[in-house]
Amino acid sequence: MELLFLGTGGSVPTPDRNTMALALRNGQHMLLFDCGEGTQRQFMRSRFSFMRLDRVFITHMHGDHFLGVLGLVQSMNFSGRERPLELFGPKGIEDVARQSVMLGHFELCFPLYWRELVPGDVVHGDGYSVTAVPTSHLPHSLGYVYEEDERPGRFDPQKAKEMGVPEGPMFSRLQDGRPVVVEGRTITPDQVMGPPRKGMKMAYSGDTLPDKRFIQAAKGSDAMVHEATTDSSLQEKANQYMHSTARQAAEAASQAEARRLFLVHISGRYEDTSSLLNEAREVFPESYLPNDLDLVEIKRQ
Amino acid sequence: MELLFLGTGGSVPTPDRNTMALALRNGQHMLLFDCGEGTQRQFMRSRFSFMRLDRVFITHMHGDHFLGVLGLVQSMNFSGRERPLELFGPKGIEDVARQSVMLGHFELCFPLYWRELVPGDVVHGDGYSVTAVPTSHLPHSLGYVYEEDERPGRFDPQKAKEMGVPEGPMFSRLQDGRPVVVEGRTITPDQVMGPPRKGMKMAYSGDTLPDKRFIQAAKGSDAMVHEATTDSSLQEKANQYMHSTARQAAEAASQAEARRLFLVHISGRYEDTSSLLNEAREVFPESYLPNDLDLVEIKRQ
Repeated sequence: MELLFLGTGGSVPTPDRNTMALALRNGQHMLLFDCGEGTQRQFMRSRFSFMRLDRVFITHMHGDHFLGVLGLVQSMNFSGRERPLELFGPKGIEDVARQSVMLGHFELCFPLYWRELVPGDVVHGDGYSVTAVPTSHLPHSLGYVYEEDERPGRFDPQKAKEMGVPEGPMFSRLQDGRPVVVEGRTITPDQVMGPPRKGMKMAYSGDTLPDKRFIQAAKGSDAMVHEATTDSSLQEKANQYMHSTARQAAEAASQAEARRLFLVHISGRYEDTSSLLNEAREVFPESYLPNDLDLVEIKRQ
Repeated sequence: MELLFLGTGGSVPTPDRNTMALALRNGQHMLLFDCGEGTQRQFMRSRFSFMRLDRVFITHMHGDHFLGVLGLVQSMNFSGRERPLELFGPKGIEDVARQSVMLGHFELCFPLYWRELVPGDVVHGDGYSVTAVPTSHLPHSLGYVYEEDERPGRFDPQKAKEMGVPEGPMFSRLQDGRPVVVEGRTITPDQVMGPPRKGMKMAYSGDTLPDKRFIQAAKGSDAMVHEATTDSSLQEKANQYMHSTARQAAEAASQAEARRLFLVHISGRYEDTSSLLNEAREVFPESYLPNDLDLVEIKRQ
C-alpha cells in the first residue's frame, strides 16, 4: 500500500504545503482522500497520474478539502478520460459534482458519479472497502477507513503432503480456494490453509477534534493519517476551531493501536514543524510528519 | 506599471506553468486578470500579496481562467480581509461569485461585489479604467484594456517665467491644475503646460482567435498580453479551438502598434517554447514569452 501526500497544509496553503489531498494506491486501485485546490498540479509533480484515480472521498465541505475537484474533473476531461470517476462525500457533495461541470460550461466526456455518505456507509470496491466514520468538525464531516479485503490464509504445503496431495497443479488449485479429490477423498482449502489474513488498513481523520468514534473505527490501522493543525501550545485555539494538536493526534494513534501515524493539515504558521513531531513522538514513537509529495510505502507485517 | 505573470499555461497546467493569471500593479491599485486554479499559491510565491488586490477581471467561463477565484476568496476570508473585492466578468460571473461562498459554506467577512460585463462596458477606477472588449472564443468571452487616466501635460517653467509668474508656490499651484493671478492677470494652467500625456495602456486578450475588435481597442498599448497557445505548425488545430498561434499574436501586436508583446496561455505540449518566441519575433521583434512568476516593469516612454 502506497500513500502519496499530495497536500499536507492547513486551511490556507503556503509555498511549501498545499491544501489537503492524500492518494492511496494498492494493487490495481487508486483512491484520493480530499482534494484541495491545486491537487491536479501536485499530481503532475509526483509519480502518480490523476488519470488512474478510481474514486475521490471528500471529508467535509471546507474549500481547502474539495476545491481541487473542479479543476481535476476539467483536466481529466481535457485529457480524454472515458472511464467513470466516482465522488463521495457528506451533504454538499452533489453541489461540488454539479458545479464542477456547470461553472465551466463544458460537456463531460466521461461519467461522473457522486454519492452522499452518512456515517456508517460502506463503499465497496474490487478488493477493498471504505467506511465513512463520524468526526467532530462540521455537522456532517466524515473520516474514512480504508480496508483491504481479507486475504486467504497461508497455504501449508507440509500439511497438504501429509494428506496425500501431490505437489503440482493440485497445490495451485487449493491455493486458489478450490477443493481437490485425492484417491476418492475430497480435500477442501480450509484443511490446508491457515486462517484468513487481515488486509491493509488506513484511517484518515479529515479535520476533527480527537474523536472516539474515529479512533474505534481506526483500530489496528497499518497507517493512521490524522490532522494535527497545531502543537499543544495552541491547543485551546485549535480545539476551539474543532482541530487537533499533534499530541492529540498521537494519543488517537496510540489508543487505536495503529502501526504508524502521519501528521497532516499542518497550520501555515509553522515553518519549523519539529515541535509538532516531537510532541507526537513522546506519545506515539511511530509518528511522522510528511512533506508534500512524500510517497510512503506501508509494507505488510 | 508592473505586470506579474502568475500563470502562463494553457487549459491544463503543467509543473512549470500554472493556468492563467496576470496581476497589474500601478501606483496604488492592483488588478488581477483571470484567476486559474492555484492562483492564491502563485501569489504566495511572488512579491505581491493577494490581500492588496482591488479587482478581478475574468475573460471567460472556462475553468482554467476562473477556478482560482473560489480559493482566493476563501483565503482572503481566512486572512481577515475587510475591504471589498470586486469581481468582473461575462455572463456566468455571478455563479462564480455565489459559489465561491456557497460551496464552502462559510460566512464572508468582507463584501464581495460582482458585475457582469458586456463588450463596451467600462469599469472606472481611481486613476484608471478597464474596458471590456469582445473576443472570438466563447459567445460571451472578453478581452480587457487597462488605461491609466491621462496625466497633466508637462509644466514649462520658461514659459511661466516669461508670463511673469515668479518661481515658488505659484509654480506648484499651476502644476496642480489651478490658476494663479499675477499683477491682476489670471494665468491658467493650460497656458504654461504642454498637452495632457497619455497614461499607460495594457491590453489582455484572454483566449481568442486573432480579433480585429481587440486589436482596435489595443491600439498603442504599452504592453499587449496575447494568448499564443501553439506555434504555426499547429495553426489549424489552434484556430479550430478558437485559439491563436504565436505568429498571429505577433501580427495582432504589430497591427495594434503595441510597444511590447507578451505571449501567454502556452500549451502544455511545449517544454521548449523557442519555436513560439522565434516566430513571434520574426513578425514583431518586441515579443517576449514570460515564465510563471516573471515580474516585468513597463516604464513610461
